[in-house]
Amino acid sequence: MAELRREPITRMWVVITADHPKGPSDYLPFKPPYQPQAATGVCPFCPGNEAMTPKETFSLRGEGGGWSVRVVPNKFPFFHIEGDFDRRPEGMYDVMEAIGAHEIAVESPDHHQNLATLEPSQIQKILFAYRERLIDLERDRRFQQFLILKNYPGIFNRHPHSHIMAMPVIPRRIDEEIWGVLDYYQRKERCIFCDIIKEETSVKRRVVLETSHFLTFSPFASRYPFETWIIPKVHSSDFHSIQEEEMEDLSIVMQSLFLRYYKLLSDPPYSLTFHTSPVQSRFHRPEYHWHIEIRLRIGLREGFEWGTGFFVNPTPPEAAALYLREVE
Amino acid sequence: MAELRREPITRMWVVITADHPKGPSDYLPFKPPYQPQAATGVCPFCPGNEAMTPKETFSLRGEGGGWSVRVVPNKFPFFHIEGDFDRRPEGMYDVMEAIGAHEIAVESPDHHQNLATLEPSQIQKILFAYRERLIDLERDRRFQQFLILKNYPGIFNRHPHSHIMAMPVIPRRIDEEIWGVLDYYQRKERCIFCDIIKEETSVKRRVVLETSHFLTFSPFASRYPFETWIIPKVHSSDFHSIQEEEMEDLSIVMQSLFLRYYKLLSDPPYSLTFHTSPVQSRFHRPEYHWHIEIRLRIGLREGFEWGTGFFVNPTPPEAAALYLREVE
Repeated sequence: MAELRREPITRMWVVITADHPKGPSDYLPFKPPYQPQAATGVCPFCPGNEAMTPKETFSLRGEGGGWSVRVVPNKFPFFHIEGDFDRRPEGMYDVMEAIGAHEIAVESPDHHQNLATLEPSQIQKILFAYRERLIDLERDRRFQQFLILKNYPGIFNRHPHSHIMAMPVIPRRIDEEIWGVLDYYQRKERCIFCDIIKEETSVKRRVVLETSHFLTFSPFASRYPFETWIIPKVHSSDFHSIQEEEMEDLSIVMQSLFLRYYKLLSDPPYSLTFHTSPVQSRFHRPEYHWHIEIRLRIGLREGFEWGTGFFVNPTPPEAAALYLREVE
Repeated sequence: MAELRREPITRMWVVITADHPKGPSDYLPFKPPYQPQAATGVCPFCPGNEAMTPKETFSLRGEGGGWSVRVVPNKFPFFHIEGDFDRRPEGMYDVMEAIGAHEIAVESPDHHQNLATLEPSQIQKILFAYRERLIDLERDRRFQQFLILKNYPGIFNRHPHSHIMAMPVIPRRIDEEIWGVLDYYQRKERCIFCDIIKEETSVKRRVVLETSHFLTFSPFASRYPFETWIIPKVHSSDFHSIQEEEMEDLSIVMQSLFLRYYKLLSDPPYSLTFHTSPVQSRFHRPEYHWHIEIRLRIGLREGFEWGTGFFVNPTPPEAAALYLREVE
């Protein structure tokens, strides 16, 4: 099991996993992060190896019975589905069990695809799987927040996959956004994300792509080089309320954006997250505006960012958006 | 010049450097962060090459005239010393010039040393240089926050060096700590850091080292494997009010800690920051308790942390402290 420990000063929750605590030898020899790893042995996400994963929670299957998208519980989850929170003090500190869900969406049967090479129709199936899982997980009243996360390339397995998580607490970054959204709403009775959409479509310099349902742009205060956000143009607080027509549009946007990245930066590593409102009526925020944030894992200034929570970005978003717009 | 742009939702300031904006080719071929770089050409931090750096702001010199520690303005600063803030709106957003100081402390004349191999007496000289620079920079009323930061190994140069920065805004991480410190103080009329020191010296399981003036420990909610904090046992808000005797003690602590890391994890990469109260009477917080935070740059979960502000640590601090205590 893993514990959630509360950092007493800033009150941030940290997951401390203790099932298989990692000692010094687990970090040796030191490997730089994100170095592509050699394919070793058999891939548990490839067709034919389904028995290597826990029992699937969702799949999309064709007439022949083969799956096109498959969701399975993570064998090494950050959050465990069984058990009680057991909230308790430990000396002056606060602890609880890390209860939650942590599933893996296998995005394609093909080990060698990625979001730049998949057909939009396949990406739409992935979005559909996300939505179905969140609708199901929402029935578990213990969860306050969903997170969909993709690291490319995958750190432990290069087969295309992403993480679907349900968490028992609202993570810091979402909490900060909600605070800002509510404060803005109080002052103006408008959604700050809707205002950003108006500003960006009017100024245009930071827009990468605009389709009927989504705006893709480099945010004004981009923290990372070539950071982009994809946001629904009509206000909606929850990703999992997305409609078929919007999923179709979004899948085209995603394929186009990741193909642009692929061509412009030679298949760069990236992380992608869906930011969506907390769930359960006590925590749900209709003022929130769901969106996708994409960060390329390029550049070198992590120490400074870590020390200060202060980001330095040497690629202005206006330049980034121009490059991304003009990719052939 | 660089701009400070305010992220409108969470109100975090981001530095956007535009002097030499980096385009796609600057990130190609993609290099994983922290891969040791080959020494190319002449090192501007080595003795004899002093003319390659801007004019020094501080140095410690022996009788022969050679320097043992030298501080110079950074040739590629995040913050510029000249100019006005020029605070202004840009559409719905907020911008100002990135005014500040960004200096480099060259920690030794010897290119091949590091904090694990330097004599404590040399580390004491580095601490003395930090203190003198902060005392001098405090006279510039434009600066609200100091930051001392070291990345090891250096990203662009492996000659031992660290960064001394004076910033015109209080960075997010310090701001969050101050918020927590003041809230705790209001409830208890005690410093939360002082309470943590009492808790840790009483529980002992997370203590790495205790000396007459400093406690070194793995924090209860460690965000990173083998994270440690070094904190003065007597309440003090500002690093630059440190006394000679404390600097001597701290230099011994630092050398011992980094030697333990060196032996335990085979010379791991790390980042180190000094957290100290904001300066200027308007911003200064006597309730704050200065300390040093050290993070090893090992492990692989950056995507998750970025997406959520949520940290997962597979090495419980009790295990980390035990390993570090027992290094021979």
